[in-house]
Amino acid sequence: MGLTSAQKDILDKAVSALHTRGFHAQYPEHPSPAIYGETADADGKEAFKALRKKNFDELGQEGASAWIGEEESPYFQAPLGPKYPSFSTEELIARAEKGFHSWRKVALDDRAAVLIDSLERFSKRFFENAYATMHTTGQGYMMAFQASGPHAADRALEAIAAGYDELNRFPSHTQWEKPMGKYNLLVNKEWRAVPKGIGLVIGCSTFPTWNSVPGVYASLITGNSVLVKPHPGAILPMAIVVAEIRNALREAGFNPDACQLAVDVPSNPIALTLAKHPKVKLIDFTGNSAFGSVLEALPKAVFTEKTGVNSIILDSVEDLDKVIQNITFSVALYSGQMCTAPQNFFIPAEGVKTPDGMVSFDEVAQKFADFTNGLVDNPKAGPFVLGAIQNPMTCDRAVNAAKELGGKVWLETRTIVNPIFDTTRTQTPVVIELTSADKDKFSKELFGPIALLIKTKNTEESVALAKELAETHGAISCGAYTTDAAMKEHIADEMSLAATPVSFNLTGQIFVNQNAAFSDYHVTGGNPAGNASFTNPDYVNRRFTWVGIRELA
Amino acid sequence: MGLTSAQKDILDKAVSALHTRGFHAQYPEHPSPAIYGETADADGKEAFKALRKKNFDELGQEGASAWIGEEESPYFQAPLGPKYPSFSTEELIARAEKGFHSWRKVALDDRAAVLIDSLERFSKRFFENAYATMHTTGQGYMMAFQASGPHAADRALEAIAAGYDELNRFPSHTQWEKPMGKYNLLVNKEWRAVPKGIGLVIGCSTFPTWNSVPGVYASLITGNSVLVKPHPGAILPMAIVVAEIRNALREAGFNPDACQLAVDVPSNPIALTLAKHPKVKLIDFTGNSAFGSVLEALPKAVFTEKTGVNSIILDSVEDLDKVIQNITFSVALYSGQMCTAPQNFFIPAEGVKTPDGMVSFDEVAQKFADFTNGLVDNPKAGPFVLGAIQNPMTCDRAVNAAKELGGKVWLETRTIVNPIFDTTRTQTPVVIELTSADKDKFSKELFGPIALLIKTKNTEESVALAKELAETHGAISCGAYTTDAAMKEHIADEMSLAATPVSFNLTGQIFVNQNAAFSDYHVTGGNPAGNASFTNPDYVNRRFTWVGIRELA
Repeated sequence: MGLTSAQKDILDKAVSALHTRGFHAQYPEHPSPAIYGETADADGKEAFKALRKKNFDELGQEGASAWIGEEESPYFQAPLGPKYPSFSTEELIARAEKGFHSWRKVALDDRAAVLIDSLERFSKRFFENAYATMHTTGQGYMMAFQASGPHAADRALEAIAAGYDELNRFPSHTQWEKPMGKYNLLVNKEWRAVPKGIGLVIGCSTFPTWNSVPGVYASLITGNSVLVKPHPGAILPMAIVVAEIRNALREAGFNPDACQLAVDVPSNPIALTLAKHPKVKLIDFTGNSAFGSVLEALPKAVFTEKTGVNSIILDSVEDLDKVIQNITFSVALYSGQMCTAPQNFFIPAEGVKTPDGMVSFDEVAQKFADFTNGLVDNPKAGPFVLGAIQNPMTCDRAVNAAKELGGKVWLETRTIVNPIFDTTRTQTPVVIELTSADKDKFSKELFGPIALLIKTKNTEESVALAKELAETHGAISCGAYTTDAAMKEHIADEMSLAATPVSFNLTGQIFVNQNAAFSDYHVTGGNPAGNASFTNPDYVNRRFTWVGIRELA
Repeated sequence: MGLTSAQKDILDKAVSALHTRGFHAQYPEHPSPAIYGETADADGKEAFKALRKKNFDELGQEGASAWIGEEESPYFQAPLGPKYPSFSTEELIARAEKGFHSWRKVALDDRAAVLIDSLERFSKRFFENAYATMHTTGQGYMMAFQASGPHAADRALEAIAAGYDELNRFPSHTQWEKPMGKYNLLVNKEWRAVPKGIGLVIGCSTFPTWNSVPGVYASLITGNSVLVKPHPGAILPMAIVVAEIRNALREAGFNPDACQLAVDVPSNPIALTLAKHPKVKLIDFTGNSAFGSVLEALPKAVFTEKTGVNSIILDSVEDLDKVIQNITFSVALYSGQMCTAPQNFFIPAEGVKTPDGMVSFDEVAQKFADFTNGLVDNPKAGPFVLGAIQNPMTCDRAVNAAKELGGKVWLETRTIVNPIFDTTRTQTPVVIELTSADKDKFSKELFGPIALLIKTKNTEESVALAKELAETHGAISCGAYTTDAAMKEHIADEMSLAATPVSFNLTGQIFVNQNAAFSDYHVTGGNPAGNASFTNPDYVNRRFTWVGIRELA
């Protein structure tokens, strides 16, 4: 079969984007009717409603031992509906093994063609998937559309491109000619990129597709088969993706079991059993640090994105209001449930330098509370930016934070009413003041809408603390505000030694939380927040082995 | 400073060789006077003699707490002589940390220039180093010259080239322009390749430089500092290399502690203490599987080459004598003390197909014994091909093999006299017949001059056993002889699934033991023989972290 000219064009542009690290979007991020069609949103909503009413039977994984699924919508605070086919571990593994031996022999261009086809199919379901994402993760509509749809598809395409690029990087054959004095020794050499075997991709409850598809597509493009094990609270978005991958495989005449969905419920988790199975050679995981570290210790190729403690360093600014507006939005966005959301805001005791002089710590803190309130209470923005809280424990954490941490509370957390779903589980950001002496309190991830304003001796101490936290507890993002060139380099150098990306002086419509495909390495892999990075070459290279075959010519 | 035009030429050719995987040798492998000068060998021998008589003081690592060293020559069976400076762990780490913070800030081209300069300096000491290698490892002169000199220097250059290539692969800066509808968002993005920190390279007793320099140069080119901890039985060859790296660093005005020698004696090993030190972030190890697996479990970037069980599969041949000549040479070469040496020879019970009909198992076994004897007893070849036995335990293993394994002994092991050093510790290959039912006996590495001829039901069983051994115990090489195209593909496919390179139908002057720089991935990293490969991109990529820095334009 091979790549169609349209697919080749998509792939070439993606590989090129990898190498320029410039902006590239194959799938438009705006859910606009002009791009996706006048009825796309309404059709997607209807399709989502239909999915809620029946078993999810489009995978074509036959012979299920049961149909299971216990997802709940954080907007409805009621069961989502669909059930998914369930299989024994041995059945999943046996099919994945067969799928592997079929798929590994498929030519690279054919693999790329099938995978790009699956993304094209998926792109026709972005709206349906947006609703599935909203009603599992609690994300607002816009984030659910973008992150779970076009942004995820771009990340998947990035993984395809990275694998394609690596696998074509070195010649697969050469004639090696060594001068031996009186004659030349001639050897025909071949190198095979041998996939590792079965890959397992374990998803999370907050970004079910965006965090899972890079591993899925990276394993598939390099010839491995994949078991997709979503979080039991957020299955539907990835079920749609897996269904379309299987459709693309079938359409091309290949065994669809190169990619299977493996579903569980909270009372009977299957991730560790699958992960430990000797036939499983690759694991991709997004989720909590404790389980991630258990997986990392397995003698397999393991790619993790765990948790971290993200910092914002405030030193000096051009326009304080713009800065506070930007960073409070970062906290409020999806109620702090992004792995890139900032938690610790380090502010010198003497305040923040501005063109109009020093602004005191208290003034900065008050602005932080005011801007947060302004956003939360804006009926056209607040409920949609905050979205819903995926897990009730996240609400509890925010509610109890003030009592457990002590410190002055600059803003209490509360609930708000979502104008569309009045049953929505909400929790607004709590803002608490601590000092640099409270390291035991701010040295852990407090997942959710919790912002800690930490008073430090000076910016040097702020930097030292942000670095130490990143080194010891991990960090996925860091924001820093400084107008001083020497301080900027100091921050960049120190945080880079802690393998933490730094965004300087962000204001306006770009936020520290955001990582773009083809340009930003998401998670560096260099601190405890995770051992892998989207998408540096290791991310695909570790999924196969170069094996040389040679013979005298 | 930057690269001189001569250095740039060396580097460009090496990077190009990486990408073509063709033959490339920067350093001529023949110790011929025409290439290296009429007096090169004699001068080298004198220099080696001088080194034996005094402390090895050319490192310039000042303030030693003691001078230690207990190397012994397997040819003299007497102490080698030199002592090396010894330091506390904290002192070594403190200097390495300072060396790191100096070296990491050196521009990539300057790093490359220093490292290529160090190889040029080393190349002037290839003969001296050959004698140092002979009298620590027991290698014959020719192997000691080639493997420890030009081949090692080519491997080091390969590591420099691989690091240089990876670090230049993606842009270090870009202006990222995202269309936002009414305006374009402009972001300046920078990516820093941040080295991990201090690297530790733990050497082995048999190939002290060839196995160590790839890790040393890969860590250095990517900006890490390195502690070189040679095997206590084979220090001098790497001491010479480290001295020249430090000379090159000093000459360029950099802190020489970017690379230090860390020496120990058998009664007081320091490798594990160094490996566990929290400041040590990278470990390269060549040696036994037990210790290698301990290191692999550390939460660091660990690159291992451990042990394996290498197989030869005999199915069908064009010229049986040429085949047996080739494979018996592979066993005799350095008395089976190469990690790539074959141990298990799988031969069908019905014999080996030849153009003149089947040759019986017994006839093949007799030829194996006869060719081995012929080589061993050839006074112009035997003693020099066999070399000396590095460790007395290796002699014991060969002597006791027949008794411990049972099975018919086709050739007894014995000692021979080396015409140059009559004190040489020698042990000739023992050849023992087993059957496929003796899996418990041949399923482990029997390091040294031990060849097992294993009678199998047929070639399919031979392949299945070779694959199983590689998967469960590791393998670094595999040789296969077949004139059948379908069987050839079967072997290539099965062994590649066990991540084991295959050399088909080698006869003449190329042996399964040999791996060439710039062309053969040494150790695939895909089976228990080791988790790393010279020099696929992971080998350098895992030594640094890409960290992104971004700011609004």
